[in-house]
Amino acid sequence: MAIKKDGGLAEVIAGQTEISTVGKQGIGLTYRGYSIQDLAAFATFEETAYLLIHGKLPNEPELRQYRSKLAGLRSLPPRLRTILELLPDTTHPMDVLRTGISALGAIEPEEEGRTQADIADRLLACCGSILLYWHHYQASGARIEAETSSESIAGQFLHLLHGRRPSELHEKALDVSLILYAEHEFNASTFAARVTASTCSDFYSAITTGIGTLRGPLHGGANEAAMELIEGYRHPDDAETGILQMLAMKKRIMGFGHRVYSVSDPRSDIIKEWSRTLALDAENKRLYVISERIEQVMQREKKLFANLDFYSASAYRSMGIPTGLFTPIFVLARLSGWSAHIIEQRANNRLIRPNAYYSGPEPKMWLSPDMRT
Amino acid sequence: MAIKKDGGLAEVIAGQTEISTVGKQGIGLTYRGYSIQDLAAFATFEETAYLLIHGKLPNEPELRQYRSKLAGLRSLPPRLRTILELLPDTTHPMDVLRTGISALGAIEPEEEGRTQADIADRLLACCGSILLYWHHYQASGARIEAETSSESIAGQFLHLLHGRRPSELHEKALDVSLILYAEHEFNASTFAARVTASTCSDFYSAITTGIGTLRGPLHGGANEAAMELIEGYRHPDDAETGILQMLAMKKRIMGFGHRVYSVSDPRSDIIKEWSRTLALDAENKRLYVISERIEQVMQREKKLFANLDFYSASAYRSMGIPTGLFTPIFVLARLSGWSAHIIEQRANNRLIRPNAYYSGPEPKMWLSPDMRT
Ligand SMILES: CC(C)(COP(=O)(O)OP(=O)(O)OC[C@H]1O[C@@H](n2cnc3c(N)ncnc32)[C@H](O)[C@@H]1OP(=O)(O)O)[C@@H](O)C(=O)NCCC(=O)NCCS
Ligand SMILES: CC(C)(COP(=O)(O)OP(=O)(O)OC[C@H]1O[C@@H](n2cnc3c(N)ncnc32)[C@H](O)[C@@H]1OP(=O)(O)O)[C@@H](O)C(=O)NCCC(=O)NCCS
Repeated sequence: MAIKKDGGLAEVIAGQTEISTVGKQGIGLTYRGYSIQDLAAFATFEETAYLLIHGKLPNEPELRQYRSKLAGLRSLPPRLRTILELLPDTTHPMDVLRTGISALGAIEPEEEGRTQADIADRLLACCGSILLYWHHYQASGARIEAETSSESIAGQFLHLLHGRRPSELHEKALDVSLILYAEHEFNASTFAARVTASTCSDFYSAITTGIGTLRGPLHGGANEAAMELIEGYRHPDDAETGILQMLAMKKRIMGFGHRVYSVSDPRSDIIKEWSRTLALDAENKRLYVISERIEQVMQREKKLFANLDFYSASAYRSMGIPTGLFTPIFVLARLSGWSAHIIEQRANNRLIRPNAYYSGPEPKMWLSPDMRT
Repeated sequence: MAIKKDGGLAEVIAGQTEISTVGKQGIGLTYRGYSIQDLAAFATFEETAYLLIHGKLPNEPELRQYRSKLAGLRSLPPRLRTILELLPDTTHPMDVLRTGISALGAIEPEEEGRTQADIADRLLACCGSILLYWHHYQASGARIEAETSSESIAGQFLHLLHGRRPSELHEKALDVSLILYAEHEFNASTFAARVTASTCSDFYSAITTGIGTLRGPLHGGANEAAMELIEGYRHPDDAETGILQMLAMKKRIMGFGHRVYSVSDPRSDIIKEWSRTLALDAENKRLYVISERIEQVMQREKKLFANLDFYSASAYRSMGIPTGLFTPIFVLARLSGWSAHIIEQRANNRLIRPNAYYSGPEPKMWLSPDMRT
């Protein structure tokens, strides 16, 4: 048994997947063979989720049916609404999703004659309802309904958030963002969800694991941390000075770097372009301009590139999304990838149980409490 | 990058630990250097939890203080009680714990000036309260109080369950069982909790991951599955016939085998002896006798040994514990090990993010919906 001194399972192959490629030479990022560039340019998030969960791109009637299935699964059971009302207004929105989806697993458990894909679809359809029901209740006491006239998951999210149909531009931009966030091979949250699934636990447990793992700032939490950083500066020159200081103090700049990509993140160019378009459309272009400067400084000083989380931050702010909801949107998108991986893990399962290198004390003799120091 | 064809990270070293050894030649199972035999014979669960979480065995004043600290942390916030009341009576008790502890993370979040060990202690102290508050409320509408005159965590659990002080024998037997279940190196739930912690997520997220992962029948869920199996037989001869049939059908017998141990599980002899003592003390000795026969058949036919989960089942039943609470008791114990591992992971963290071997489709050209089959 070889010991990887640097840990983190970097470069270790932990299993097989047919779902996506990340950083493979020549094929970059693909979801079931389709390039992320094509998906972001031509697909909708619903098609992407169908591709991931159901294994193929839907044809026209399938897509129509899928959209209407999803639209029919938005509303929340009354018990869940009450549970959400009981979560304090100070709660981290990721804790709301973790608790809300865990509770949904108690109320609508897996053993009910639904397929795994049905559960995945239900979660995709009602994740935004869970988050925004809680959000509005805590903000104003309003008990919102989950039905809107917006058809897409992205449109529905912005509609519930702002209480009105979003502009086409905003709906499209969020839709693309969901496509970009949908899937990413054995990233930490997906891998953790597969470990949970490997004990033959239920679907909701694996998803809850995914949410709790995505929450950390080294993973999904990076988009919120990036926003806090960017917003802290008034001018690109301040940003440059600030970043240089942070680097001198060996601090990590959130939204930069990646475990697998070494030169660039293929999703970053796409979201950057959308962030730019949104900034041009909006009054405030400051965040975009400051983001660009930070990107230049990081490239110049550390050869580190922006990852998907970095320009997602300014893009989301242009759509009027509060920072605390950024990582939950990542959940909404990644539910599709997690679900595909849970289904794949189960189809050819073996318990995921590694070993550890022991570096602790030698065997010790027992001493009773009165003999201990 | 070498591909492990058989998967499951078997034999792969995924990191370092100072907390325990599992199956290391010559040292068997130790917690911070102390053998499981010594701990089960001489320690209490509180000492064991202190050892795991705080890194050393407590001396007399420390132990006294620790016990009273734990006893003071048993009660539940009113919001959490209401949330538990809202979980249907059909809920899987592991879903109750997963949701209840996730909700506690919303109500008493990590960012509150408590240490990590404080959170671990709080969870150890109130896990039984969460489970049994829900249990009694769903069974009879009773809203129980979490305070009892029983001092130990084991005694408190049985006291809350049965509504009276347990016998010394039962309290001691459950206490030993908690010691045996407390910690087990990089088992699936602990490893998953470490993956969650490695993104710098919060303590409760990592624990929620642990619970969801333990739930599966290939892991913690095996004690419940073993009970259902054993209870299905009226006589050892039926059991023998039944097991032989299952083996002929290539079915897995829950409570047997282990990823790391190859000859025996050192915890099994200890819990078997307690199961026997409890059976001798009880009216019904049937389950113990049937368990012994199943063990013989598995040894003879498959050279597979009983693991900790197998005799835990009959031991718990002798104490009047309903099957649905078996895996939750494993949670109660393992909270100590998970907490120690989360603290250890954080102290020397690197993101846990492996790679996958891609076996999916080659790059594909995009087709619009009307062109798809
Ligand atoms: C994503 C990430 C966790 C990958 O980490 P990893 O593969 O384990 O790489 P390491 O943490 O070992 O970092 C390697 C080196 O690059 C540096 N580095 C990596 N990302 C950095 C960042 N964002 N800012 C500053 N330095 C960084 C590390 O400090 C380390 O330097 P050292 O060798 O001098 O100690 C890491 O790049 C990071 O923390 N990024 C910021 C968080 C983020 O954006 N996460 C979202 C990822 S999509
Ligand atoms: C614990 C466990 C998951 C370890 O699994 P693993 O290391 O991945 O081993 P595998 O699943 O590859 O099993 C190896 C072989 O032993 C057999 N085997 C292992 N455990 C078995 C069991 N409990 N009953 C019957 N056969 C078993 C497998 O069928 C397999 O046979 P094969 O090679 O003919 O296919 C496995 O022993 C098991 O499922 N046990 C029952 C569940 C249980 O008690 N879990 C609690 C563990 S503390």
